[in-house]
Amino acid sequence: MSDSFAGAKTKTGTLILVKSVFTPVGMLAEPFCKRHPGFWKMLTVATCMALLGCLQAQELQGHVSIILLGATGDLAKKYLWQGLFQLYLDEAGKGHSFTFHGAALTDPKQGQQLMAKALETLSCSQDIAPRQCAELKDQFLQLSQYRQLKTTTDYSALSKDIEAQVQHKGLREAGRIFYFSVPPFAYADIARNINSSCRPGPGAWLRVVLEKPFGRDHNSAQQLATELGSIFQEEEMYRVDHYLGKQAVAQILPFRDQNRQALDRLWNRHHVERVEIVMKETVDAEGRTSFYEEYGVIRDVLQNHLTEILTLVAMELPHNISNAETVLQHKLRVFQALRDLQRGSAVVGQYQAYSEQVRRELQKPESFQSLTPTFAGVLVYIDNLRWEGVPFILMSGKALDERAGYVRILFKNQAHCAQSEARWVAGRSQCLPRQVVFHVGHGALGSPAVLVSRNLFSPSLPAQGWQELEGQPGLRLFGCPLSDYYAYSPVREQDAYAILISHIFHRRKDSFITTENLLASWVFWTPLLDSLAFEAPRIYPGGAENGHLLDFEFSGGQLSFSQQQPEQLVPGPGSAPMPSDFQVLRAQYRESPLISAWPEELISKLASDIEASAVRAVRRSGEFHLALSGGSSPVALFQQLAHWHYSFPWAHTHLWLVDERCVPLSDPESNFQGLQAHLLQRIRVPHYNVHPMPVQLRRRLCAEEDQGAQLYAAEISALVTNSSFDLVLLGMGTDGHTASLFPQSPTGLDGEQLVVMTQSPSRPHHRMSLSLPLINRARRVAVLVMGKMKREITLLVSRVGHEPQKWPISGVLPSSGQLVWYMDYEAFLG
Amino acid sequence: MSDSFAGAKTKTGTLILVKSVFTPVGMLAEPFCKRHPGFWKMLTVATCMALLGCLQAQELQGHVSIILLGATGDLAKKYLWQGLFQLYLDEAGKGHSFTFHGAALTDPKQGQQLMAKALETLSCSQDIAPRQCAELKDQFLQLSQYRQLKTTTDYSALSKDIEAQVQHKGLREAGRIFYFSVPPFAYADIARNINSSCRPGPGAWLRVVLEKPFGRDHNSAQQLATELGSIFQEEEMYRVDHYLGKQAVAQILPFRDQNRQALDRLWNRHHVERVEIVMKETVDAEGRTSFYEEYGVIRDVLQNHLTEILTLVAMELPHNISNAETVLQHKLRVFQALRDLQRGSAVVGQYQAYSEQVRRELQKPESFQSLTPTFAGVLVYIDNLRWEGVPFILMSGKALDERAGYVRILFKNQAHCAQSEARWVAGRSQCLPRQVVFHVGHGALGSPAVLVSRNLFSPSLPAQGWQELEGQPGLRLFGCPLSDYYAYSPVREQDAYAILISHIFHRRKDSFITTENLLASWVFWTPLLDSLAFEAPRIYPGGAENGHLLDFEFSGGQLSFSQQQPEQLVPGPGSAPMPSDFQVLRAQYRESPLISAWPEELISKLASDIEASAVRAVRRSGEFHLALSGGSSPVALFQQLAHWHYSFPWAHTHLWLVDERCVPLSDPESNFQGLQAHLLQRIRVPHYNVHPMPVQLRRRLCAEEDQGAQLYAAEISALVTNSSFDLVLLGMGTDGHTASLFPQSPTGLDGEQLVVMTQSPSRPHHRMSLSLPLINRARRVAVLVMGKMKREITLLVSRVGHEPQKWPISGVLPSSGQLVWYMDYEAFLG
Repeated sequence: MSDSFAGAKTKTGTLILVKSVFTPVGMLAEPFCKRHPGFWKMLTVATCMALLGCLQAQELQGHVSIILLGATGDLAKKYLWQGLFQLYLDEAGKGHSFTFHGAALTDPKQGQQLMAKALETLSCSQDIAPRQCAELKDQFLQLSQYRQLKTTTDYSALSKDIEAQVQHKGLREAGRIFYFSVPPFAYADIARNINSSCRPGPGAWLRVVLEKPFGRDHNSAQQLATELGSIFQEEEMYRVDHYLGKQAVAQILPFRDQNRQALDRLWNRHHVERVEIVMKETVDAEGRTSFYEEYGVIRDVLQNHLTEILTLVAMELPHNISNAETVLQHKLRVFQALRDLQRGSAVVGQYQAYSEQVRRELQKPESFQSLTPTFAGVLVYIDNLRWEGVPFILMSGKALDERAGYVRILFKNQAHCAQSEARWVAGRSQCLPRQVVFHVGHGALGSPAVLVSRNLFSPSLPAQGWQELEGQPGLRLFGCPLSDYYAYSPVREQDAYAILISHIFHRRKDSFITTENLLASWVFWTPLLDSLAFEAPRIYPGGAENGHLLDFEFSGGQLSFSQQQPEQLVPGPGSAPMPSDFQVLRAQYRESPLISAWPEELISKLASDIEASAVRAVRRSGEFHLALSGGSSPVALFQQLAHWHYSFPWAHTHLWLVDERCVPLSDPESNFQGLQAHLLQRIRVPHYNVHPMPVQLRRRLCAEEDQGAQLYAAEISALVTNSSFDLVLLGMGTDGHTASLFPQSPTGLDGEQLVVMTQSPSRPHHRMSLSLPLINRARRVAVLVMGKMKREITLLVSRVGHEPQKWPISGVLPSSGQLVWYMDYEAFLG
Repeated sequence: MSDSFAGAKTKTGTLILVKSVFTPVGMLAEPFCKRHPGFWKMLTVATCMALLGCLQAQELQGHVSIILLGATGDLAKKYLWQGLFQLYLDEAGKGHSFTFHGAALTDPKQGQQLMAKALETLSCSQDIAPRQCAELKDQFLQLSQYRQLKTTTDYSALSKDIEAQVQHKGLREAGRIFYFSVPPFAYADIARNINSSCRPGPGAWLRVVLEKPFGRDHNSAQQLATELGSIFQEEEMYRVDHYLGKQAVAQILPFRDQNRQALDRLWNRHHVERVEIVMKETVDAEGRTSFYEEYGVIRDVLQNHLTEILTLVAMELPHNISNAETVLQHKLRVFQALRDLQRGSAVVGQYQAYSEQVRRELQKPESFQSLTPTFAGVLVYIDNLRWEGVPFILMSGKALDERAGYVRILFKNQAHCAQSEARWVAGRSQCLPRQVVFHVGHGALGSPAVLVSRNLFSPSLPAQGWQELEGQPGLRLFGCPLSDYYAYSPVREQDAYAILISHIFHRRKDSFITTENLLASWVFWTPLLDSLAFEAPRIYPGGAENGHLLDFEFSGGQLSFSQQQPEQLVPGPGSAPMPSDFQVLRAQYRESPLISAWPEELISKLASDIEASAVRAVRRSGEFHLALSGGSSPVALFQQLAHWHYSFPWAHTHLWLVDERCVPLSDPESNFQGLQAHLLQRIRVPHYNVHPMPVQLRRRLCAEEDQGAQLYAAEISALVTNSSFDLVLLGMGTDGHTASLFPQSPTGLDGEQLVVMTQSPSRPHHRMSLSLPLINRARRVAVLVMGKMKREITLLVSRVGHEPQKWPISGVLPSSGQLVWYMDYEAFLG
């Protein structure tokens, strides 16, 4: 093995001269090389600089050892060796010396051969002449050596070799980089070996580079992170998401930074219509199903690549984007603001041939059908004031009609053009689409690019790295001809790994995934993955034949395929059930009207009935007094009312609580909190028309001396004519309780009190509740009972008489009002 | 004068025969005519039916007299006579007999000649052969007669003539229609004459038809309405808006009705992106400036035609759209929900040649510049749950690049398509535009039409009246080729007046403007008209040369032209002032920091400072306690905070009131109401973090025994650590008062009380206020002072010492907190 100095020395006869010329430390190689091109005819400027740099290195910065674990694997062959070579070309002239250790489990001889083969394909960038490239490659090979790393002893030996070498050449050790290009099951062993036997000495740094997958859900990721965290410091770990090295992705933050003035007013919910983050592949998973079957598209692409892009687009822009720590903090805050994903947040598909490929490759039986999605569309919302309501659409899939990757920020069209559309001029008409696209690669354009609609603003991009893209007549992108955009592409296309290896070397931690970031992402994705685990994905033929089969739509936060599958006959997204769709059974229950239906229809009917009551009441008296129960059944009702009842007279509606738990109103257990989250946040009821129960007064919960019940009763007496609510919505417990009136608790069943304090058998025990006499003064009482758990009590209560002591619900009998039961089929029919 | 029977008799020799054939009353003419085509070779089926019908008329329905006032005017010549002729063709066979009286002020002989000339051009629809048409026209002429109507005597004579005629022919009088095709100043006289001398006798109806303008603002319209209302019953009046007779407009409600199933889920804010209601003209106002200069485009087109269309699109759809009363009620409710227009709701323009035309036609001096707009774009919002947030864009203008009229309902694109756009198939891809267009006429299409995007739904239109439009290759409409639409046009194009005259005859009141409707529209438009009265419109060259000069954009409810005029250098729409734009003066005032700027910058700075305080407080303690003053200056602050401060930690902010008036919280005078309207409605503060002052308890206002002040003090003590607000926002009155602490009122300036009751010199006198000692416990106090009315007190207070009894503001001096003054230049520098 030879260090960089030795390598350089043995390669060119001119070196002694160079050394003597450059003895003064700190003098720059570049001006010299450029000023004496004739003198150094045999060398290119680049080579000259590299060699000169190497000479200075030992004296300035110390020695760096890079150990590539899995040196003969696919990733290494395809990207990593080339990335290391590029690092050598870029950095060797700038003060460090290097050695490169390819490592694997293979025995030295065979390993050496395999590695040599992998290194054959190394190439230089186009600006280096072939002959010079061959020279530089030769130098790199001299600095690169294979070694078997299997046992702890192997690691100790490596460490000793490095130390000996450094000492021998009179160098200082700067640090060691271990690049884990190995399957994750091998991580722990390697990590322990490095830690115990191969850490550099004091004053030198250690960096370990990890490749995904980093777990397959939150638990496994957490476990892996804990394991690694017990061995390495957070700052020693570099988790690679190679998308962060893609030129267009890496340009997102700098672009936002350099175009702050134009973007500051645009980059928010007032102006952004939607954000699309897309990675489409034409290939399928054939040959990789043993991996793919374990992971699927969401773990493979969305949880990492697309989520990273999302955070770069959505994060608050730090003042200084080169401060990695601030950038990482701001990214984390995006995770905190992400709205939880629901089952309805995603659509998933699987290309037709997949299951057969799995059966073949993994020797599964003929009957085996995989549920692993190879296509996913996910709708993400960010609940902060900047992005609230803006759909972020993440999509990826295999066997699609094209290979393409992009982030597209589409701005709202808030213009109206007075001229007929034939006269609209691109770049001047605000009625044409306005968008910013970070084009990751491939697609119709075929290269990385940043596109900004000409009617948006003229962007500023780094003049060295990016240049204006040449026109390609006829090419349309995202609904517009290419000429409608300011379009920039990198001067030199660079591979993501080369960029990331450089960032590792330069300690640019913001291009990597921190443990916190990783876990936050898994916290976000795991519930969706769990909820999809047993769902059958939609089968698609693959390629252009997919037609519109995978198109999807969103409405009310839910995502669904646009085309119904022939066998499906469910209503489309966002379709409110029409009155004519109701499949509603009308009957009698306890001598009062009963309405029974499937849950969705039942809730729709109840919501319509409540609106009808409201309209009548407002017409009659100018006000509608509605008392609502808490619990889970009303949540669907609240959502229905908020989303579909446009004409509900909310401005004239007073909202009261039927009962409340003695917890702070902001407690998630509070009934009021449910009302607030699912209804109040979405409608416009005047503040003073909302009447939470005063369970907390003087910072105490339901203290008797605070007389909360009396206070609420007084408020009702003052505002509700005759203390007769227009509508009271009740539920029924499996023990026959209603409101917070329990069989075991004697209060509130009769007497004068309007509001009472009661005891629940379940926690929290203390409750405040409207009394039965008050409930029975209402003009209308609706009892909503849902779910098969209620079947038994429903049956029982149907048979009992007026026995409120045993079953408080049996005491609900409005003295002059109307009682209506709303039961879903499960509660009513079992 | 001859009645229809007489007219028919003198025209054809075959009539005796016809009469004898048809003596049995109730037998239908049509089957007979169709069964005997040979027998009646000389007559078309239509003519046969008309003639037969006339014979039956007298025996069945009675006689109708139609008096066209202004019978020789432009409107009459162009549309009304033709409409009356059409009525005759349509109705003469169905049971009524008619006479038509053309009337004007001209003497009989000359009038007769003019009228005869006007009648020459009458035409039949294409399905009537020329010869038959000539016959029918001849009949109509026989029934039509000119008469001078000038004096009361003239009207009495007319009435007597009608009665005599009816009697003479043994007919029953069914009713009289007076069509006012005269300038509005003539209305009153005519109306009185009709009322006093020309009403039909008992059992017969009277209908008067009125043509716009119906006033030029709310006052004048009200005056005219009161005047007419004292003479005619509401049901006797038919105010014409001829747009309601345009076939595409008249189709809006039937279309919504017949396509309920598809539209019910789409016709709302969740799915509609915008509604455009447009009427563009290429002609200018030359020759009509005496009218136009008085009215302008908003009164001429927007207040009536476009507003009527808006109500048809936006109204809740009645179950039965043929119930005119319900339709009219539903229209009225749209007006109630319209958000008030502001100056910023509109952009106005004037074509370049206009002022010169006015000068020429109205003999104005060379220096005269008209401010009358000939172009307007207006942004309308409807604040109900169906339409909240959906922009309704109304636009009309003269001297534009094309003649076109349409209503376009554009639906939101809530789809994402998995295929590359080249593969999108119209009619199946949900990613292509989805829209419904009611094309009133002209434009590229050239005819009335209803268009529905094929990817939306397949519409149902009345099969008799409407047919599928034939393809016109290459024609693009609203961003899509015509083939992307289901496109229907009327089988027979009909003039609006013909339709409306038929509706008058059939008492279809929903096609006309009721008094309530008219006044509601003026209530809506008048404030905008007032605020534009002295604004200079943007001058545009006219025609295609307008380029993008008249394009406009909306943001935050404001409208503005997209292109800045060269001389203007104001920020574009929705641009938040950047910190770098602040032109802020920093100084000292009363030994505390002073920040001074123009109002907009000042508010921006204050909002940013408040956010910074909030972020600090939440970081420190998890909560931010902010006490806000009422009044007008904070409104701009509230809007700024709600619109631009995405990262404001509202969920952790408690909002308190500095002071309150003893009025109900829902009173427009209440400080809380301002806070609610301008801030609370737009952000998400948890209900229990909002703390209005308890000025109303037990339905009483500020009753001493209710101890509201003590209650508020207790709430503050309980929730705010040390009763020290994080920030208190104050104002300063011209008398030196702050909060509701007044020079004349000794309370609250010192002592232990945190919250006090005070007396204001102005109404409402009773107030609740934080006390000076409580204010001075705050961590930060900001005093916002704006407007030149404050200049004097600002100067005075700068000189006085600590004299809270005289100038309460001088007592504001936080004991350990920071006081900052925010004054705009007018308040600070005068």
